[in-house]
Amino acid sequence: MVKIGIFDSGVGGLTVVREVKRLLPQVSVIYFGDTARTPYGIKSRKTLIRYAVEDARFLLSKGADIIIIACHSAASTASWELKARLDVPVFEVVSPSVVQACRLTRKGRIGVIGTRATVSSGVYPRLIPEERMGTEVFQQACPLLVPLVEEGWLDRRETRMIVKRYLRPLKLRQIDTLVLGCTHYPLLRRVIEEKAGRRIKIVDPSEEVAKSVKAYLEQERLLDEGRSAQEAGPPPVDMDRYFVSDLAPHTSQIVRNFMGRPVRLEEVLL
Amino acid sequence: MVKIGIFDSGVGGLTVVREVKRLLPQVSVIYFGDTARTPYGIKSRKTLIRYAVEDARFLLSKGADIIIIACHSAASTASWELKARLDVPVFEVVSPSVVQACRLTRKGRIGVIGTRATVSSGVYPRLIPEERMGTEVFQQACPLLVPLVEEGWLDRRETRMIVKRYLRPLKLRQIDTLVLGCTHYPLLRRVIEEKAGRRIKIVDPSEEVAKSVKAYLEQERLLDEGRSAQEAGPPPVDMDRYFVSDLAPHTSQIVRNFMGRPVRLEEVLL
Repeated sequence: MVKIGIFDSGVGGLTVVREVKRLLPQVSVIYFGDTARTPYGIKSRKTLIRYAVEDARFLLSKGADIIIIACHSAASTASWELKARLDVPVFEVVSPSVVQACRLTRKGRIGVIGTRATVSSGVYPRLIPEERMGTEVFQQACPLLVPLVEEGWLDRRETRMIVKRYLRPLKLRQIDTLVLGCTHYPLLRRVIEEKAGRRIKIVDPSEEVAKSVKAYLEQERLLDEGRSAQEAGPPPVDMDRYFVSDLAPHTSQIVRNFMGRPVRLEEVLL
Repeated sequence: MVKIGIFDSGVGGLTVVREVKRLLPQVSVIYFGDTARTPYGIKSRKTLIRYAVEDARFLLSKGADIIIIACHSAASTASWELKARLDVPVFEVVSPSVVQACRLTRKGRIGVIGTRATVSSGVYPRLIPEERMGTEVFQQACPLLVPLVEEGWLDRRETRMIVKRYLRPLKLRQIDTLVLGCTHYPLLRRVIEEKAGRRIKIVDPSEEVAKSVKAYLEQERLLDEGRSAQEAGPPPVDMDRYFVSDLAPHTSQIVRNFMGRPVRLEEVLL
């Protein structure tokens, strides 16, 4: 059975796990959330590369066949480094989102919201016009959205005001497509859609990376392993494992918000 | 000249530096902000002890004669550990604030706001009734205030609403004294005072710890070193040093907000 290793700066990457399990119920997942050093989104490029390499090596030590960088900040700053250093396929949330955003936009005006690190990496404004020439990209750093999600304030008045304030400059630029450039943001999708308005299409990178991993596994025929999906019967016993580098009292509650169910977390010192 | 080592999870501890320099212009300061692992306030006791020991050892390696734990989360969870392990005097923001809050309260009803780690450490509800029997303590975790300060939203409408929402349960309990149990909160002091109302007295731990360090240095006659304050003349050349474990592009801006002036930051890998 294919083992997919997924890492993130914290628990946000569980939105990627959710999508992977939805599209690929037959794979097992090894998750690592670097909660002892979270968040990545406010830290420098050099530090993020160091952390990402350590995170990926941990997943490989647990038998991962494939790595997904679920963290946008790490994907934006460290994915080339990881792809160069590791012997397994490395997927990340940015590239498939770039492709999808370019597919969806009509006017060639794409908005991106994310952490400070993702925005200042400039990865979307660099990659999007390469994918579709002439497309304009407008970015907005939204440092308060992660804390709001972790506080569980998913639908409060303050959250709606803050989302509205962050989206205003993008709407003034008349974007027609918006990339949710941070793993926490899918939990605010309803509020974001409401404040963005119906004319703006949303790209959720957790969906896009899961689709691209699925396409890869199908193409490489790694899913059936000698038996067809029809013969496979029920999915195997749940062998997923969830590691965090710091297990605070509050973590389990946040994880429940992300997964919609309780999850057993194992603590590991990196 | 006395060298005071001050550490914090990030840049928040600069409010303590500011007070120390105000009360003790003749000492030099070595600051360490653990920006590579910030914030501490959401992490577990075990992890915080490990970080605090590493932070203090770094300051000692730079010649600190005294350590101040400026971080409430670290002070609440790791100060006994540090006092036991280190050979230099260790001061921290909690104990002097306990004393001051007990001095100020008339009704014996004290409110404490802080991070999740500080609140769940239960340090204030444990120490305050020991200092003044029968005093009741009411706590409120305010995880959004640190990100709001770091975003520079010191006086926005959203900030005022969030502060109001956090203070409401404490006002319902009719507190007459409020401890700002996190180094970032002094930057929100105006909004907090406004939402708390004039009847509630504020305790700012950065002021209290600076006062207690000053009292100690005077008592031990460590300030004059053979010459009286009158003879001392102008303060010595500025020998203060400011270290951070991660120097992100945004850090210098936040530091300027805290110090009211630009500061040269040195990056160090811990």
